Amino acid sequence: MYFYKEDLINIIVPDKPDPAAARVLQEALGGRFGEMRTMMQFFFQSSNFRGNRTEFRDLVRGIFLEEIAHVELVQNTINQLLTGTGEELPGNAGIDAAPLDESVKHANPHHFIVGAQSSLPVDAAGLPWQGSYVYAHGNLIADLMDNLVLESTGVLQKSRIYEMSSNKAFRETLAFLIVRDNAHQNAFAKALEKLGVEWGRLLPVPNYDLNKYPECRKYVDMGFNNALFNFRLDDTRIAEVFNGESPSRSGGQLQVVPPPPGYPLPYNPELPNEHSPGLTDMNR
Amino acid sequence: MYFYKEDLINIIVPDKPDPAAARVLQEALGGRFGEMRTMMQFFFQSSNFRGNRTEFRDLVRGIFLEEIAHVELVQNTINQLLTGTGEELPGNAGIDAAPLDESVKHANPHHFIVGAQSSLPVDAAGLPWQGSYVYAHGNLIADLMDNLVLESTGVLQKSRIYEMSSNKAFRETLAFLIVRDNAHQNAFAKALEKLGVEWGRLLPVPNYDLNKYPECRKYVDMGFNNALFNFRLDDTRIAEVFNGESPSRSGGQLQVVPPPPGYPLPYNPELPNEHSPGLTDMNR
Amino acid sequence: MYFYKEDLINIIVPDKPDPAAARVLQEALGGRFGEMRTMMQFFFQSSNFRGNRTEFRDLVRGIFLEEIAHVELVQNTINQLLTGTGEELPGNAGIDAAPLDESVKHANPHHFIVGAQSSLPVDAAGLPWQGSYVYAHGNLIADLMDNLVLESTGVLQKSRIYEMSSNKAFRETLAFLIVRDNAHQNAFAKALEKLGVEWGRLLPVPNYDLNKYPECRKYVDMGFNNALFNFRLDDTRIAEVFNGESPSRSGGQLQVVPPPPGYPLPYNPELPNEHSPGLTDMNR
Amino acid sequence: MYFYKEDLINIIVPDKPDPAAARVLQEALGGRFGEMRTMMQFFFQSSNFRGNRTEFRDLVRGIFLEEIAHVELVQNTINQLLTGTGEELPGNAGIDAAPLDESVKHANPHHFIVGAQSSLPVDAAGLPWQGSYVYAHGNLIADLMDNLVLESTGVLQKSRIYEMSSNKAFRETLAFLIVRDNAHQNAFAKALEKLGVEWGRLLPVPNYDLNKYPECRKYVDMGFNNALFNFRLDDTRIAEVFNGESPSRSGGQLQVVPPPPGYPLPYNPELPNEHSPGLTDMNR
Amino acid sequence: MYFYKEDLINIIVPDKPDPAAARVLQEALGGRFGEMRTMMQFFFQSSNFRGNRTEFRDLVRGIFLEEIAHVELVQNTINQLLTGTGEELPGNAGIDAAPLDESVKHANPHHFIVGAQSSLPVDAAGLPWQGSYVYAHGNLIADLMDNLVLESTGVLQKSRIYEMSSNKAFRETLAFLIVRDNAHQNAFAKALEKLGVEWGRLLPVPNYDLNKYPECRKYVDMGFNNALFNFRLDDTRIAEVFNGESPSRSGGQLQVVPPPPGYPLPYNPELPNEHSPGLTDMNR
Amino acid sequence: MYFYKEDLINIIVPDKPDPAAARVLQEALGGRFGEMRTMMQFFFQSSNFRGNRTEFRDLVRGIFLEEIAHVELVQNTINQLLTGTGEELPGNAGIDAAPLDESVKHANPHHFIVGAQSSLPVDAAGLPWQGSYVYAHGNLIADLMDNLVLESTGVLQKSRIYEMSSNKAFRETLAFLIVRDNAHQNAFAKALEKLGVEWGRLLPVPNYDLNKYPECRKYVDMGFNNALFNFRLDDTRIAEVFNGESPSRSGGQLQVVPPPPGYPLPYNPELPNEHSPGLTDMNR
Repeated sequence: MYFYKEDLINIIVPDKPDPAAARVLQEALGGRFGEMRTMMQFFFQSSNFRGNRTEFRDLVRGIFLEEIAHVELVQNTINQLLTGTGEELPGNAGIDAAPLDESVKHANPHHFIVGAQSSLPVDAAGLPWQGSYVYAHGNLIADLMDNLVLESTGVLQKSRIYEMSSNKAFRETLAFLIVRDNAHQNAFAKALEKLGVEWGRLLPVPNYDLNKYPECRKYVDMGFNNALFNFRLDDTRIAEVFNGESPSRSGGQLQVVPPPPGYPLPYNPELPNEHSPGLTDMNR
Repeated sequence: MYFYKEDLINIIVPDKPDPAAARVLQEALGGRFGEMRTMMQFFFQSSNFRGNRTEFRDLVRGIFLEEIAHVELVQNTINQLLTGTGEELPGNAGIDAAPLDESVKHANPHHFIVGAQSSLPVDAAGLPWQGSYVYAHGNLIADLMDNLVLESTGVLQKSRIYEMSSNKAFRETLAFLIVRDNAHQNAFAKALEKLGVEWGRLLPVPNYDLNKYPECRKYVDMGFNNALFNFRLDDTRIAEVFNGESPSRSGGQLQVVPPPPGYPLPYNPELPNEHSPGLTDMNR
Repeated sequence: MYFYKEDLINIIVPDKPDPAAARVLQEALGGRFGEMRTMMQFFFQSSNFRGNRTEFRDLVRGIFLEEIAHVELVQNTINQLLTGTGEELPGNAGIDAAPLDESVKHANPHHFIVGAQSSLPVDAAGLPWQGSYVYAHGNLIADLMDNLVLESTGVLQKSRIYEMSSNKAFRETLAFLIVRDNAHQNAFAKALEKLGVEWGRLLPVPNYDLNKYPECRKYVDMGFNNALFNFRLDDTRIAEVFNGESPSRSGGQLQVVPPPPGYPLPYNPELPNEHSPGLTDMNR
Repeated sequence: MYFYKEDLINIIVPDKPDPAAARVLQEALGGRFGEMRTMMQFFFQSSNFRGNRTEFRDLVRGIFLEEIAHVELVQNTINQLLTGTGEELPGNAGIDAAPLDESVKHANPHHFIVGAQSSLPVDAAGLPWQGSYVYAHGNLIADLMDNLVLESTGVLQKSRIYEMSSNKAFRETLAFLIVRDNAHQNAFAKALEKLGVEWGRLLPVPNYDLNKYPECRKYVDMGFNNALFNFRLDDTRIAEVFNGESPSRSGGQLQVVPPPPGYPLPYNPELPNEHSPGLTDMNR
Repeated sequence: MYFYKEDLINIIVPDKPDPAAARVLQEALGGRFGEMRTMMQFFFQSSNFRGNRTEFRDLVRGIFLEEIAHVELVQNTINQLLTGTGEELPGNAGIDAAPLDESVKHANPHHFIVGAQSSLPVDAAGLPWQGSYVYAHGNLIADLMDNLVLESTGVLQKSRIYEMSSNKAFRETLAFLIVRDNAHQNAFAKALEKLGVEWGRLLPVPNYDLNKYPECRKYVDMGFNNALFNFRLDDTRIAEVFNGESPSRSGGQLQVVPPPPGYPLPYNPELPNEHSPGLTDMNR
Repeated sequence: MYFYKEDLINIIVPDKPDPAAARVLQEALGGRFGEMRTMMQFFFQSSNFRGNRTEFRDLVRGIFLEEIAHVELVQNTINQLLTGTGEELPGNAGIDAAPLDESVKHANPHHFIVGAQSSLPVDAAGLPWQGSYVYAHGNLIADLMDNLVLESTGVLQKSRIYEMSSNKAFRETLAFLIVRDNAHQNAFAKALEKLGVEWGRLLPVPNYDLNKYPECRKYVDMGFNNALFNFRLDDTRIAEVFNGESPSRSGGQLQVVPPPPGYPLPYNPELPNEHSPGLTDMNR
């Protein structure tokens, strides 16, 4: 069973709205290699795990638990990037000629029609997330290798998305996720190492230098690229797999640590022009 | 952040495999009104909630937490319905003329090709789950009404699926979920009642008598149809909404209670003929 | 604007349920070349028509009007093929070991889960109808040629579906539609003939002999293969296109005629085991 | 059977082209809560209706008939918003550096590639309409509740789309549809009221004031928010359900009335640069 | 079996990047009537061909072979239109306020996230190519007619896309494909002519004058509109169908000729800011 | 440019029809890890390749060329498994009560409606192939790793499909493809080995013994598991990557060899009851 404490896994840095950034950040939420995919893929792999080498199941499940918090983090970041765009009241847009400002023209219109200036389960092109993204074929090695490709591609895409806006909330969330994807890449690579692979200098993929991303540096200093957070309320065998030297050329020692302290969820104000939530005028 | 204790939310009753039942039970997992939909819909509504009436957000989020455990329950039930179907070793099927027994002919072939006799994120017709199922439009009343339709339709479909096999694992899981959907229907109906609706004798939908489902009776006796489980490790305002008389004609008092005690996750044996997990012969 | 008289465009012959036949007949409703496609394609082409050669728009729109009635006919035929399958009461299926009889095993399970033993907007493989099926490219010749391919493929598929069951309701509806698709094929071929094409002996496609389908013969005797029904309450220019010798090798004179007399819509009884409609027990 | 009179259900106010507005207005045509959905959902519910309480079937079918005319209205509005955008002749675009003007850059490119500056069966993000949008589960109460959510969400989305352009054709069509959705919301709410629900002050959803939308006011003055149009050529039992006090807090008496007088369909000129329709140069 | 010589079927004219043009050119690659569709449709028709009239199979297969080269041509054209857009190094975009220049705002963001400034199997609206586009129904006449519609629509769309940018690489590739689609339209029309159709002056569709497209003229002078290239290493019966007078009103003699001489594939430089190819810093 | 010689890459062993086997074999054609995916993925990676390490591009392109022949092989195998199922003439099915024999009940109905007893671009569950399956992210290491997962999963699925029928044509084609996927797995693993990875005893995935599949043995004896076929008519650098010791624990030396001798394409007879091809009766 699953338990919750109302804390975000990382801080959302304040900055102004940027709907065009929100549009592309959706890839990290609902894209084929986004957080919804990692969350659901590791969920299915955990439940469908076979055999008694449960240290591998605990590893996959442990990362699944973190991915739920990642989904929540990206949802909240997108919400901040969208909220406050356009200030018109219902029925007043006609007063001026530009009811939607320039930035909105580059937005996903569904952010303003289907969502109330808030996140959606879609990718950067507006395509809905699909169950067929999930890879849970039940052969442990194949599953681990696919997970490694998934985390590597997650970083690759995030490093590309990072280029698309200098918005601080946008970049901070991406930087945190890039470091965590690095840690998860290490986790699946280490699991394969336990099964006999030597990675040489191949990893991490892509061949990026975390120090070039200023927002990443502090997370590296905190050791987040070589750590797995433990979200279990009972025992776990994760550390039987996740230990020793990092399998990537950036080096360091792998270790299982407690979760971050937690950050407050942002307050989302009501938006009358979106009829959201719509209780204000009902005098109840 | 999200925490886990390795306990299933309900027991999985032992019975023999039934792949045709597994196929139709997928609707309750990956269908348009299945548990993946409820889980993700309430997740997006929780994160995208606007305004300071957080008792409503806590209600939606609380049910989201239970839905994760529901997804896990259905995944495990499907796994048990599939596991042990066919016993051929790789390459030996040609020895006899009937490599797949009769029941498998009525199965979703993806259960044996894409999954290793295990659950998939698809519906009863084999269609993948889609992000566009999620309704999180940000108008609280519209969201609550859609949630009520979602839970009602969930029960409606489960009561129809229940007819399709007398397998005990199949029916026990469905019966538990029917009662819980009833509780969630009560939760959203009560929230709307707080906003002014009087339901008369309309609810529950469908117009079913839980006593006609023998497996449901014990859950009703335990009050599960009028209870919300509290999965929060910190405070929650759920009880400000979920209290008083049940909004449905079956009556009773609504109350927030601790989670069930928890049941062990089933052990899924290795399946050499599915190459799952694939570690056996590697002498590691 | 659109007006309605509660009459089916053709009779539905009584016969016993056949869910496997209902499954394949869905292709004629929600398939890529089914009646929903013809209905929506001709609707978009009518509204999006450009230029003053409105005799062509009237032709397309006239056939659109008939296609609405075709959709209704197939929906009702599927309903009859499904209704009455399985007689179990809620909660009683467990009494015997075979809650769903043999024929249901070959059914689309969504007919019993998503629909209440009734038609769905899907094809024979259970895939949902898609807007991208619609071809309305706005070049009149290209549109007419695509319509001709669409009607030809419609007949081709229906002549294949016809082989799949000898159920009388199933075959009668298919036979009526085969003849009408023939008429519509003639309509689009004649329109292209007006623009310069001579078809030689190419049409109709496929190269089928209506006399081999016993149910078709009476409709041919009534001239339905060379007639367009006029559903307009005001004037129409259809007859400026649809006149003269049939463009197909089966010959005959094309003519615009009044609609058929109309047949009663079947009565669909309540199905308590589907919780449909669910008013019975509420004592209202 | 279905009959037609060449009249639009409302006027299309002249204004200049606005392809960006056409793009977002597609949500009201081919979106998950658009007019194609209401049309097809009420069509399937009508044909699949079970039992002898046919006053409810007549209500659903009556609204289905109006929805066909709504689809036609939105198609024509989108056509006007697109037509005349760009004036280049084939092969001449290279003469200047800006073959497509600024507004087209914010358009759905399919409006100019797949359609000939005309409407498509897609939503505001360009995603095709899907059959799986349709809800026709056969339990009358569940169907009515889903219809109520559908109409409420339809209004919610239209009130958001309305903000996105001050184009007069765009807003007039949206305003008419907002009022009619209000009437349909009243219809389904009243049907549920007949079955026992008291709505208090909950409805309409969203909590909008029609008077803030200047284009809506005249339709309210004409009573369109409390009227159902009767498109039947034979008898109907709609008035047995749709009568008495409005179930919404805006009040008024519900009544069944004849259809509006009807407005001429706009003339769509040929577009040589779209090769549409393409008959001009053929000298026929 | 399939063999390859590293030659493009046509030249790619140098010009500057234009991501907005790349976005719309995707329709010619992954759209419902694009080159991936023609390639796969003719592949399935070739393999599934029935009967001994193999001159028709050879015709379809011969065009299939050319379509593989068309896909390669469009992929390379899109790559050139994208490459060099934005020059930022990883992590440096934040230095200035506009990490993505104006033209990128009108791009498909997936070109920069999922691809490394390179082509994708999607259409102009970003929708993925689908297998259901393929028409291979096995009735030769129906297949030929659909192929004719497919090629006609291919030209129609390309003539519309051509208007959207004056970029030279963009237009040259489109012009070459417009002429080749004309040849393929002639091929399928001639095949139908052999079966009895006389086309009058209907073809080509659309009613375009190749001379209005300056880039097309040289290809017409080379006779490419009336030629089929022979990519077979063994014998073929194509010329039994493709011979004599062109079936289109533009006239000329049809003939089977050797492939064009071939043009070098463009060199795609590494893109460090896309982490592509990612080998640079690994010192191997 | 692409050239063709009318030869199948492997023999199709004669055996009787088996539509249920054809249904599941579709996974190897149109599934997420089937031959259409490998073909299109390697095609896009080849065209989109960046940088001057063209030995890797030649490797990917070389395998792409073989995959076209694989698609052709599976299409033809499926055609043989389907052809001859049911012998009824048009309009005669009603004479007996079982127009479709038992095995057809377990078929994909689209094989008989959309195809003329022939292959379709869909998977074992009937879902159409999608462009979004293609992974071509442009980072060479990520692409190679995904290719390795793709080939490994291809084998894994084929070894599961192999169990589902003992039909000789079905198993021979699968056995050939299993061995070739093994070779391709070796190719991508060796490419990664060149970049520094040591695989230990991890590969091949799944951990299968080719000797347990009797049909595989002869291909192993011919060295097909360690060979790449060269389909280039000009030079290629494949052997710079594909050489030396096999990266899998089954050992052997990798070598580039000429293509197999080629096998005749099967003759597909006309099927009058499918109206395929439909020329017979037209007396032309």
